[in-house]
Amino acid sequence: MGDEIPFFHKVEVPPKQTLFQEFKHNVKEIFFSDNPLSKFKNRSGSRKFVLGLQAIFPIFEWGRGYNLKTFRYDFIAGLTIASLCIPQDIAYARLTNLDPQYGLYTSFVTPLVYAFMGSSRDIAVGPVSVVSLLLGTMLKEEISDFKSHEYLRLAFTATFFAGITQMALGVLRLGFLIDFISHAAIMGFVAGAAISITLQQLKGLLGIKNFTKKADIVSVMRSVWSAMPHGWNWQTIVIGVAFLVFLLITKYIARKNKKLFWVSAVAPMVSVILSTFFVYITRADKKGVSIVRHIEKGVNPSSASEIFFSGKYLGAGIRIGVVAGMVALTEGVAIGRTFAAIKDYSLDGNKEMLAMGTMNIIGSMTSCYIATGSFSRSAVNFMAGCKTAVSNIVMSIVVLLTLILITPLFKYTPNAVLSSIIIVVVLGLVNIDVVLLLWKIDKFDFVACMGAFFGVIFKSFEIGLLVAVVISFAKILLQVTRPKTAVLGKVPGTSVYRNIQQYPEATQIQGMLIIRVDSAIYFSNSNYIKERILRCLADEDVQRIENEFPRIQYLIVEMSPVIDIDTSGIHAFEELYKSLQKREVQLVLSNPGPIVMEKFQASKLTDLIGENKIFPSVADAVATICTKGQEL
Amino acid sequence: MGDEIPFFHKVEVPPKQTLFQEFKHNVKEIFFSDNPLSKFKNRSGSRKFVLGLQAIFPIFEWGRGYNLKTFRYDFIAGLTIASLCIPQDIAYARLTNLDPQYGLYTSFVTPLVYAFMGSSRDIAVGPVSVVSLLLGTMLKEEISDFKSHEYLRLAFTATFFAGITQMALGVLRLGFLIDFISHAAIMGFVAGAAISITLQQLKGLLGIKNFTKKADIVSVMRSVWSAMPHGWNWQTIVIGVAFLVFLLITKYIARKNKKLFWVSAVAPMVSVILSTFFVYITRADKKGVSIVRHIEKGVNPSSASEIFFSGKYLGAGIRIGVVAGMVALTEGVAIGRTFAAIKDYSLDGNKEMLAMGTMNIIGSMTSCYIATGSFSRSAVNFMAGCKTAVSNIVMSIVVLLTLILITPLFKYTPNAVLSSIIIVVVLGLVNIDVVLLLWKIDKFDFVACMGAFFGVIFKSFEIGLLVAVVISFAKILLQVTRPKTAVLGKVPGTSVYRNIQQYPEATQIQGMLIIRVDSAIYFSNSNYIKERILRCLADEDVQRIENEFPRIQYLIVEMSPVIDIDTSGIHAFEELYKSLQKREVQLVLSNPGPIVMEKFQASKLTDLIGENKIFPSVADAVATICTKGQEL
Repeated sequence: MGDEIPFFHKVEVPPKQTLFQEFKHNVKEIFFSDNPLSKFKNRSGSRKFVLGLQAIFPIFEWGRGYNLKTFRYDFIAGLTIASLCIPQDIAYARLTNLDPQYGLYTSFVTPLVYAFMGSSRDIAVGPVSVVSLLLGTMLKEEISDFKSHEYLRLAFTATFFAGITQMALGVLRLGFLIDFISHAAIMGFVAGAAISITLQQLKGLLGIKNFTKKADIVSVMRSVWSAMPHGWNWQTIVIGVAFLVFLLITKYIARKNKKLFWVSAVAPMVSVILSTFFVYITRADKKGVSIVRHIEKGVNPSSASEIFFSGKYLGAGIRIGVVAGMVALTEGVAIGRTFAAIKDYSLDGNKEMLAMGTMNIIGSMTSCYIATGSFSRSAVNFMAGCKTAVSNIVMSIVVLLTLILITPLFKYTPNAVLSSIIIVVVLGLVNIDVVLLLWKIDKFDFVACMGAFFGVIFKSFEIGLLVAVVISFAKILLQVTRPKTAVLGKVPGTSVYRNIQQYPEATQIQGMLIIRVDSAIYFSNSNYIKERILRCLADEDVQRIENEFPRIQYLIVEMSPVIDIDTSGIHAFEELYKSLQKREVQLVLSNPGPIVMEKFQASKLTDLIGENKIFPSVADAVATICTKGQEL
Repeated sequence: MGDEIPFFHKVEVPPKQTLFQEFKHNVKEIFFSDNPLSKFKNRSGSRKFVLGLQAIFPIFEWGRGYNLKTFRYDFIAGLTIASLCIPQDIAYARLTNLDPQYGLYTSFVTPLVYAFMGSSRDIAVGPVSVVSLLLGTMLKEEISDFKSHEYLRLAFTATFFAGITQMALGVLRLGFLIDFISHAAIMGFVAGAAISITLQQLKGLLGIKNFTKKADIVSVMRSVWSAMPHGWNWQTIVIGVAFLVFLLITKYIARKNKKLFWVSAVAPMVSVILSTFFVYITRADKKGVSIVRHIEKGVNPSSASEIFFSGKYLGAGIRIGVVAGMVALTEGVAIGRTFAAIKDYSLDGNKEMLAMGTMNIIGSMTSCYIATGSFSRSAVNFMAGCKTAVSNIVMSIVVLLTLILITPLFKYTPNAVLSSIIIVVVLGLVNIDVVLLLWKIDKFDFVACMGAFFGVIFKSFEIGLLVAVVISFAKILLQVTRPKTAVLGKVPGTSVYRNIQQYPEATQIQGMLIIRVDSAIYFSNSNYIKERILRCLADEDVQRIENEFPRIQYLIVEMSPVIDIDTSGIHAFEELYKSLQKREVQLVLSNPGPIVMEKFQASKLTDLIGENKIFPSVADAVATICTKGQEL
């Protein structure tokens, strides 16, 4: 039994776990992989309470070390994002087909809640373009008359259930579910949404009155085209294009010189003020330039009683809420993670969900619609040097002051300038370099990205998202269905065996064939792997006989990458063993992992193959075969 | 770099493939993994034609070596399965709610077609219990009056589209799709179907007249119970139970002594003859014993004009055909593979699909319903010593003779005896040992099996199948979402590094932490893997400092099992690198595979990490770090 060979070790089976231990371990890894309770161990009762409070409201944790110096940074960042968020809020509310004040309401309440509960220090919370358009499109499919009170009530209902969805995901610790939407898919989805939103804004920018209600590119372009001869309004176009050019220039300046980021941050506010003043003195609104007209003054009214908890719109509210809530969550968490990675702190996905869920539930009762982390404002927040979520509080207070004091001043703001603001923001989300990189690195990611992109622009948001998720999954399944195998050879001068395609100098051993299986072996691939190994053996045998090498007597299957196996896989190994026996080839296994060894023993496969034919490494197997030969 | 160390090798990147090569390779592995055209290479035109003919009709290949001696075996096997199939055909037709002759028609035409085109030598083709019940249930949901002509036409329509589905899968080389239904799921599904069919047979066995049309266990048991006081017919029960006991005894004998398999094979025929004779002389049918009454005499009439190619039933026909066709295919291929593995010949999945598709299409035009490989008859065929598909031809001819000559004799056959035959066959499909083995080896497979089982018995066939497929996939996705990582240590006296949990004697190296990632790195797990590595590093560092060991300066990530990585994975590595830099820990990689290396280079990650920090093995990495230390 190989004990003459100094480096021979038996392949060991780890101590068997009871079913309960195994189950507990699996549950822990899925739901509590971050081990959230470790902090609570060995603490007194009152300390546990404080820690629990801090876990739910991180502000009590970082707030204790908060000082005036930090506040100075947060104050400046807060003012900057406030000047950006006010015009955006008014513009995004239009995407949702709601009156402009609802955008401002949202930017007042939700950042306050987030500041107490969120764990990101950089994201700026409020209405965002993608979610606003998604919500607007889905609401209009249910209730086409968006001036009706039902429409507004359905918006609050959807917001409420979006919050419930997000909170439920956090409480049930299902944070990992949003990992299922790949980065590539999000890129495509956002780019598609950006194009889609931009095209929608042609309505405002060109002053078109009769516009399609659909969001796909074909309907929109047809609308624009058919309105061409008389439907366009040149005064609107002049205002819109002028400020579009202005915003693009400020953006260009900010990109060239990172220190001048505030130029592009305050540009929307400047545009709104200038254009409002211009329309007011020229009375361009009498010449067909569409204006905001009226914004309600005062703080958020309560809307708790407006939410549908029964009736025919309840189902629609839940459906829209779940979809929009998931999209909002994905975007918010992705943005939060991006900035957390830059500053190297960790973001707790489940905690973020809880925070966003709570803020949307409270929002739905205070006349807000779905809010999440905004990419454009978070980036400005970060660049302006924010330190904590206090910048969100500052922004919220500025919005409050705006609501109380100056909303009537926005009466003459032309819609065209709001369209320009939206276009400039969303076009910034299209990142061609990243898409090119996807193409270079991983073609499948590129396809997922393009699938989401074209799904959104040609069909709808939901279809785009669905396409992306399906393609992402197809990739995983394909890899598990048609895994790779590699023929190994000995790297000269070492005892290491490597893929002969990757290491052309690696040489095969006479009389043996060494194959590595590069995947877990499951029902979906067990048959394929078995047949592939047999085919490889047959091909190799023919080749060796042609070259007058001895025929293959030993098949060594290197199992290091085989991290798991199921009953179908074990069945396939039994069949492989029988087929090899008929061909007078010995089956030798190298380095099966702990789980695989356990299952081999449970199924008595180790007895069938022979424990003396299972080695801890290929080198061991080869050395033993060379020494003992036929005795094995 | 490191050339002083004798065994140092650079990690190589395989020669880059063009996009087209890569695409071609992938398509080949998915659709043509068996390399079906290799035989045709370097052959003359006429030879190619012969090979092509043989590829579609394997009978031309094995038929050439066919001789009288082989025929003797096939003849005996054919007679044996014919005597088994005639009573089964009549019984299974009842499951489909069709007249008994349609079962016989199916057993005449489809085995002939299969004999020419099939590549299995052992399976016996014809109507089978599971598919018959599935078809019957689904048809009755569409047209509740199963005596109507529409019902029959819909059956042929479904059969036609089942054939089209099967053929399409074969022609499009989508054979791998049926690998997606795991063995464990099939076990549960079949066991559930067996219980479901058995309960349905209580109607015939107890002579109940008013019986539910639903297939789930609750409805059926309620039906049986409510009919209890007066609905049961004791004469029927006597006949049914008597022959049930007789059949079970013969089955027991056959199991105890394999040579007496023919006892259980001819028992159904004997039961039919005896019970028919008994009913005929006692005129028990006048006392409420339900009998077959009438079987049409003569060969299959044409039914090509009966298939719905338009109208309101076309959609239903397609839907039922696709579902039943997939189930039939899965069962047929699974049975074929089982026997092919025993005799060690290979079964071509795509060819099987083509054969089964053709036989069902032809069947749908000649008054047959969906046929596939039958487990009970195939087992008898195998035990009776069949050598080729000629046994199917023999069976088919016997059925033909039955149809022409003796069908009127079945008039007095009691339905109770048919129920007994069905019960005994299907209960043989429940294999508790295998289920126990599933539990022992793989808990997840067990859950999939149970999901399918309970889905079938409590809800419906489709739900059971759906549950099984979803659970099977969930397992794969779970594994890809929460992969394992392992801390490695050096196995004493070797240069091999292994999981310290599996090899407790393996020792860790001071100042280094070696972690192996046991999965491809995709969007669904990249974030988890990154955080898991960092958490492991933090935990390990605390422990080492407590034990007064030096702190960890090098993190070696062993990447042998990482067979693929996507852009999210690369992103995660970038973030990992940055986080480690802040902690003053060096990131070192060991043995990335060819695909991973290619993507690392394409994304310039190799430049970021430094090519001198990527080693072909852990031993190389450790040796180099020990030699060069801080210079690295």
